[in-house]
Amino acid sequence: MKVGFIGLGRMGTAMATNLIRAGHAVAVYNRTASKAQALIDQGARLAPRVSDACQDDAVITMLANDDAVEDVVFGLNGVLRNLNQHTVHLSMSTISVALSEKLADAHATAGHPFVAAPVFGRPDMAAKAKLFIIAAGEPENIEPCMPLLNAMGQRTIRIGESPPTANLVKLSGNFLTASVLEALSEAMALIRKAGVDPHEYFELLTSTLFAGPVFTNYGGLIANQQYQPAGFAAPLGEKDIRLALAAAETLRVPMPLASVVHDRLQTVIARGGDKLDWSALGPLAANDAGL
Amino acid sequence: MKVGFIGLGRMGTAMATNLIRAGHAVAVYNRTASKAQALIDQGARLAPRVSDACQDDAVITMLANDDAVEDVVFGLNGVLRNLNQHTVHLSMSTISVALSEKLADAHATAGHPFVAAPVFGRPDMAAKAKLFIIAAGEPENIEPCMPLLNAMGQRTIRIGESPPTANLVKLSGNFLTASVLEALSEAMALIRKAGVDPHEYFELLTSTLFAGPVFTNYGGLIANQQYQPAGFAAPLGEKDIRLALAAAETLRVPMPLASVVHDRLQTVIARGGDKLDWSALGPLAANDAGL
Amino acid sequence: MKVGFIGLGRMGTAMATNLIRAGHAVAVYNRTASKAQALIDQGARLAPRVSDACQDDAVITMLANDDAVEDVVFGLNGVLRNLNQHTVHLSMSTISVALSEKLADAHATAGHPFVAAPVFGRPDMAAKAKLFIIAAGEPENIEPCMPLLNAMGQRTIRIGESPPTANLVKLSGNFLTASVLEALSEAMALIRKAGVDPHEYFELLTSTLFAGPVFTNYGGLIANQQYQPAGFAAPLGEKDIRLALAAAETLRVPMPLASVVHDRLQTVIARGGDKLDWSALGPLAANDAGL
Amino acid sequence: MKVGFIGLGRMGTAMATNLIRAGHAVAVYNRTASKAQALIDQGARLAPRVSDACQDDAVITMLANDDAVEDVVFGLNGVLRNLNQHTVHLSMSTISVALSEKLADAHATAGHPFVAAPVFGRPDMAAKAKLFIIAAGEPENIEPCMPLLNAMGQRTIRIGESPPTANLVKLSGNFLTASVLEALSEAMALIRKAGVDPHEYFELLTSTLFAGPVFTNYGGLIANQQYQPAGFAAPLGEKDIRLALAAAETLRVPMPLASVVHDRLQTVIARGGDKLDWSALGPLAANDAGL
Repeated sequence: MKVGFIGLGRMGTAMATNLIRAGHAVAVYNRTASKAQALIDQGARLAPRVSDACQDDAVITMLANDDAVEDVVFGLNGVLRNLNQHTVHLSMSTISVALSEKLADAHATAGHPFVAAPVFGRPDMAAKAKLFIIAAGEPENIEPCMPLLNAMGQRTIRIGESPPTANLVKLSGNFLTASVLEALSEAMALIRKAGVDPHEYFELLTSTLFAGPVFTNYGGLIANQQYQPAGFAAPLGEKDIRLALAAAETLRVPMPLASVVHDRLQTVIARGGDKLDWSALGPLAANDAGL
Repeated sequence: MKVGFIGLGRMGTAMATNLIRAGHAVAVYNRTASKAQALIDQGARLAPRVSDACQDDAVITMLANDDAVEDVVFGLNGVLRNLNQHTVHLSMSTISVALSEKLADAHATAGHPFVAAPVFGRPDMAAKAKLFIIAAGEPENIEPCMPLLNAMGQRTIRIGESPPTANLVKLSGNFLTASVLEALSEAMALIRKAGVDPHEYFELLTSTLFAGPVFTNYGGLIANQQYQPAGFAAPLGEKDIRLALAAAETLRVPMPLASVVHDRLQTVIARGGDKLDWSALGPLAANDAGL
Repeated sequence: MKVGFIGLGRMGTAMATNLIRAGHAVAVYNRTASKAQALIDQGARLAPRVSDACQDDAVITMLANDDAVEDVVFGLNGVLRNLNQHTVHLSMSTISVALSEKLADAHATAGHPFVAAPVFGRPDMAAKAKLFIIAAGEPENIEPCMPLLNAMGQRTIRIGESPPTANLVKLSGNFLTASVLEALSEAMALIRKAGVDPHEYFELLTSTLFAGPVFTNYGGLIANQQYQPAGFAAPLGEKDIRLALAAAETLRVPMPLASVVHDRLQTVIARGGDKLDWSALGPLAANDAGL
Repeated sequence: MKVGFIGLGRMGTAMATNLIRAGHAVAVYNRTASKAQALIDQGARLAPRVSDACQDDAVITMLANDDAVEDVVFGLNGVLRNLNQHTVHLSMSTISVALSEKLADAHATAGHPFVAAPVFGRPDMAAKAKLFIIAAGEPENIEPCMPLLNAMGQRTIRIGESPPTANLVKLSGNFLTASVLEALSEAMALIRKAGVDPHEYFELLTSTLFAGPVFTNYGGLIANQQYQPAGFAAPLGEKDIRLALAAAETLRVPMPLASVVHDRLQTVIARGGDKLDWSALGPLAANDAGL
């Protein structure tokens, strides 16, 4: 397939690379154009402007936050004004439910096919095409994109026809992960203060009830006390929990645990942890325990 | 081996049954003696008094809470005064760290071998000998008990030589589980209020990052909104989080998430949920969201 | 003085009435013009359009929320485009710090004097000209407005020269009040469940350490279990705590207690309490305790 | 009147001094006898043993915590075994509701008059006989003690006939105070990070809605950032919130805000603040905000 790809951060670069490897013709756009070179070396074509990425079978946006997506989509030279009538906009960024609703409405009004398809997985999973993709939109819009999705992820799960649903589910997933992070951080502080070795504890947890990738990945990070380089930086985690809480506010759903987790991530950042992985909830709990 | 077994609730009965099946000679004691009958029918011997269960290679205590263990161990006709010098006391109940310390001290003073070996797993796992057993104590006391532990669990993990450590780890595990329960409850309330089907959501979670027994077991219970009969009743869960917080207080470890989870379990109970499974955090979150 | 007054809700109507009583010439504007009649009967002049209220010594805006202020100020026929060069814009609404910054910047760019002067006090205090007014802005802008402020409040306290500071302080005050509300709600649930009469308890508190208007006003509401009609409705309270948390997020200040209070107000609303006073945290705590 | 006084800490010494000044005959007992000298110099009689303080019209116990009260009351030479039949035991210590129930039961069984009369007020208020005393017990037991209570406090408020009620109310009061402390701490961190002077802010708060002793006393401590010497040390505050939560647990009353406040006090202590006043929640909030 022919596809435009907008947003070449760590995640986007890995995903675009996999599209190229799978044989798709990829036109790449990034605000800082120099980031496109590595992909061009692998066979991608440079899209000098956003509009140049909007003329193929699909255009994928994979950007850092709401502001970046708003700029790229609603700007004067943006996606919305330049999208070819049959080009599917595949929005894979982790954005707010409110913005996803705005995108869905704008594309519907303009008569453009729109699919939200955010992902679960960190850069290492993106590199191995092992992402889980959560897709929502009309089946006739998702179906033609499957070869693209299959090239980037190990599995695509559909969750309804309303695109914002996928974004809500994605945010809820990051909330679940952050909850496990905070729980593990408190538990590790507790057992460490009692003199238990955190590696033995981690081994025990993950070999009994607490198996599965979330416990295994994050338990290991906290046990090893290794928070840099950040696979997913604390400010990004904090942002996603904030977006989950914003959606909860709109839907009127009290989330006391989410509030705690948000507050703890705020503290990590306020105390200087901007560059740390969000698993740096671990040293926060340890520090608060006087460790 | 020859072993006494004290405490024939749902967990204890299942565990004692597996000991018999594995060929061990089991003497069973229960305050309400009638509960012993099923085991006697399978080949157990009745221990009319606690002291009659304390004369063999080991005596296992598997009781509901601290009070029950205090009565059985420190009472006039209790374990401590009647333990044969070489009988290992294998304390498998989920009890407070403080009581485990008291038990360890008392046995050390009396010169009796003592091992703490609480378990992860609900009655269905106990019935299938699939428990995970967390053992702490001196190796020469644990080693001879391995045939017993192997008959009751799928795996025994040792965590140090100080028995109370095992109890702390066990409580920390229940805290981790309760945290996941509360997180899932809030997430499910959120997506349900957005119109997402909870079964589809559950399927999505467990087939992506949120695999592993905790998410699978409890996510299913909450998605199905089935809280009775209780595999583990809310008051038992609340008690364990309280004991984790009590240990945290002694060790001076702040646990904000544990405080929230404790508070939520309190609310389940105060609002009439004594008989419900602790996964009834699910309907609490739903109800608070106006669902 | 001659003054325009925009926003004739319960607070605005009371405040404008006091301006008239003090002898000021008041031009009133409200989106729903019928609300202006009572004031016109007392001597106010009708301002048919926003611009008609922007030609005097000052224009006061007293609107319900950020959206209303944005419309009135930044709209095509709004305050910003129509403000007479020497007319002070006195922004008395409770709005976000972010919007206050935007207003301050826009007025500075346009060369208009701008003062933020939100108030502490409910409609009954407004009616009696007993408001406390928190003013921030340049002294030469505040000084000429003093006769107006004195007509509406019992005291005006200045807090710096940057207008958004006053809005932050106002929001922080509502957070303090809401914290006392939640604390009183929990305490009352506790002592009621122990059989203590809440009126006796209220009497005891307010006659000892817990004197002062916040405890006296809200303790009485909760003891009397009287939550309608709302002096300040739960959704307004929830909104203000949300704005305080938004400011805290921007400033990177973790506020765990604010998060709890926000969550509780959310629950009041989600469970159907839209019309109740924000002191309806009281029945929420009682209900969660099974009372 | 003739009265025994047991417990000569900072509070007890001040209270006993006021009894002497009011003309009562006071026999003082303290575990560390040297602390009695200053009172003896003022006219008190030394009670060498607990029992020597139990023979007069009343015996007052004013001790640091549950353990101290248990020792003094239930010990071999304790109050319970040595109390003259008509001597009222006036229990003024801040203790758990559970212990107060145990004391009430034990005295009832022994046929001794028992009154619980904990106090609101710090040592400076005790010195000025300005305490507020919360009394619960049978009227015929309280009535004869009024001359004593009047000598120590500015006011005695009766709250029912069941002594533990007074202890519950006292603990609830400390919870209310701690809630205000935490709220003020978060608010001060917020406005400080926005560049507002905390003294101006304090002045503003206390001259508007946030008058009354709690805001005035504690707001000043936090604004001044003066946490030593401790008027009421963080570990004592933490203990009282813990006792409030323990009572809440028994009564099944969820108290989410109390849980947060407890957690914060725990953090103050774990991070080294044992010697600080409980208003050191202030620097904790500031520190967590990166100030």
